[in-house]
Amino acid sequence: MNPRVIIQEVAPRDGLQIEERFVPTADKIALIDALSQTGVAKIEATSFTSPRAIPNLADAGEVMAGITRHPDVDYVALVPNERGVERALAANADELNLVMSASDGHGLANLRMTPWQSLDRFPAMIEQARGRDVFINASISTAFGCPFDGEVPASRIIEIVERLTSLGIRGVSLCDTTGMANPRQVRTLCEEVLERWPELAVTLHVHNTRGMGLANALSAWQAGVTRFDAALGGLGGCPFAPGASGNVCTEDLVHMFEEMGVDTGVDLDALLAVSQTLPERVGHDVPGQVVKAGRANRRYPLPASVRAR
Amino acid sequence: MNPRVIIQEVAPRDGLQIEERFVPTADKIALIDALSQTGVAKIEATSFTSPRAIPNLADAGEVMAGITRHPDVDYVALVPNERGVERALAANADELNLVMSASDGHGLANLRMTPWQSLDRFPAMIEQARGRDVFINASISTAFGCPFDGEVPASRIIEIVERLTSLGIRGVSLCDTTGMANPRQVRTLCEEVLERWPELAVTLHVHNTRGMGLANALSAWQAGVTRFDAALGGLGGCPFAPGASGNVCTEDLVHMFEEMGVDTGVDLDALLAVSQTLPERVGHDVPGQVVKAGRANRRYPLPASVRAR
Repeated sequence: MNPRVIIQEVAPRDGLQIEERFVPTADKIALIDALSQTGVAKIEATSFTSPRAIPNLADAGEVMAGITRHPDVDYVALVPNERGVERALAANADELNLVMSASDGHGLANLRMTPWQSLDRFPAMIEQARGRDVFINASISTAFGCPFDGEVPASRIIEIVERLTSLGIRGVSLCDTTGMANPRQVRTLCEEVLERWPELAVTLHVHNTRGMGLANALSAWQAGVTRFDAALGGLGGCPFAPGASGNVCTEDLVHMFEEMGVDTGVDLDALLAVSQTLPERVGHDVPGQVVKAGRANRRYPLPASVRAR
Repeated sequence: MNPRVIIQEVAPRDGLQIEERFVPTADKIALIDALSQTGVAKIEATSFTSPRAIPNLADAGEVMAGITRHPDVDYVALVPNERGVERALAANADELNLVMSASDGHGLANLRMTPWQSLDRFPAMIEQARGRDVFINASISTAFGCPFDGEVPASRIIEIVERLTSLGIRGVSLCDTTGMANPRQVRTLCEEVLERWPELAVTLHVHNTRGMGLANALSAWQAGVTRFDAALGGLGGCPFAPGASGNVCTEDLVHMFEEMGVDTGVDLDALLAVSQTLPERVGHDVPGQVVKAGRANRRYPLPASVRAR
């Protein structure tokens, strides 16, 4: 199994987009800059979406302009359409994350497009980025199931990945948008995708809606996946997928891998320190566990009654 | 991998013992009787401990006398000493769960005994039960790490299991009492124990203190473990292990296995219905996820805006 994994922080985008209250631009910038110092390889900093659709990220341009770029971090922007690509390129994003749904229902509800309509639109968006030093990733939402349509067959994901790679896309995220995936399903689909496209950069993006986030990440790692999206504190969800709760929690994921002897490149103590600032920034408690319980190597003094004996 | 696992419910004991307020005896009995109807194979109903040490379970005898025995359920009583064995036998427990710690610090803090002192005491307790139709299991607390002493080497667990089996004990629970275990460690230790003692009934008992409960259960299942302790709603903890939060949540564990196609014998909808009664019985919200999010097969209607198109 791989002794090294890559952690991709998505809280500034997938986390903050669903918060009840708008997180001020300066706080977003401070959060991203703090995350940049923790060793995470990528940060999905924002989304160049219609401010009407996602008002919480209406400041995408200001955020990208305000952050201090760390040379070892790739700053990713989610883009739903040509206008988004244009804005993300103007903001010098290191990576564009094209987004589509695997299911008709979620695609129509979230993007007003079926999967096939999204795929038809991608070539023009890719063309826009030609000649620019920018990596293009495509995220496949509801890849493990759709809250509207139900089961999404693996064969449909294979067909979508086939189409994406034929467009020249070299990175694909398999997204369990509403936390419906189980470890067996994750293992089977990830193994099939990695076997068919060994050169493809495959990311697992899971939510902890039903408590299976870390188990699904473990299962994907066992299948050979080395790239993981996660959100600090377990923030997140999808505004168009009712019932969804948080993304898998970055510090809990890093903690699990580090405890297993799998290098994440992340300074966990630094990450936990940033996580401790979250409740104040977002105005509520967050789901992460390790920040509350401490790392597994936390020690307690023996009770006085024992020491006295 | 095994297509069938056995779920052992421990909320009435490991859950209720640490609650801030005493749960009335009638409520305990109602909870156990409701759990008896869900298909769980075993219920750890109570602990015959000193009422001074664990006041919440001071009604152990009344609970055992008040429940309605389901013929397919084994009712387990935890027993820390000879007096406990005597009381549990008088109460007609189907199984005695002898308890010890793998680490000196936790053993002294929790039981006032080192592991070796516990092992020296077990023969007399086993002798008490001779000729009675009662199964004897031994739980090894802090088998994956101790909050006071730190790392507990696997070799120590092997030595303890060797001693236990030499006493004629045929069931052993490996307990991650304060949620320090990681999936790699769980897999390695479980594989070694199962390989050395293929006839031993090995139970994994994990806490979700650092979010790894389901990942650790998955890992143990991959190692060949088929018996799992879990607490409804994710209740629980250990009164003598500071920092510990809940046991792995029964309904979340059952949900994961059932989604994977692994039969648990449990009627998940019935279990979720019992879980929904918990917050009122214990007076606070509980950590379980599936009871809040619904099963993965939960469906939502498409938004009206999509349906109108």
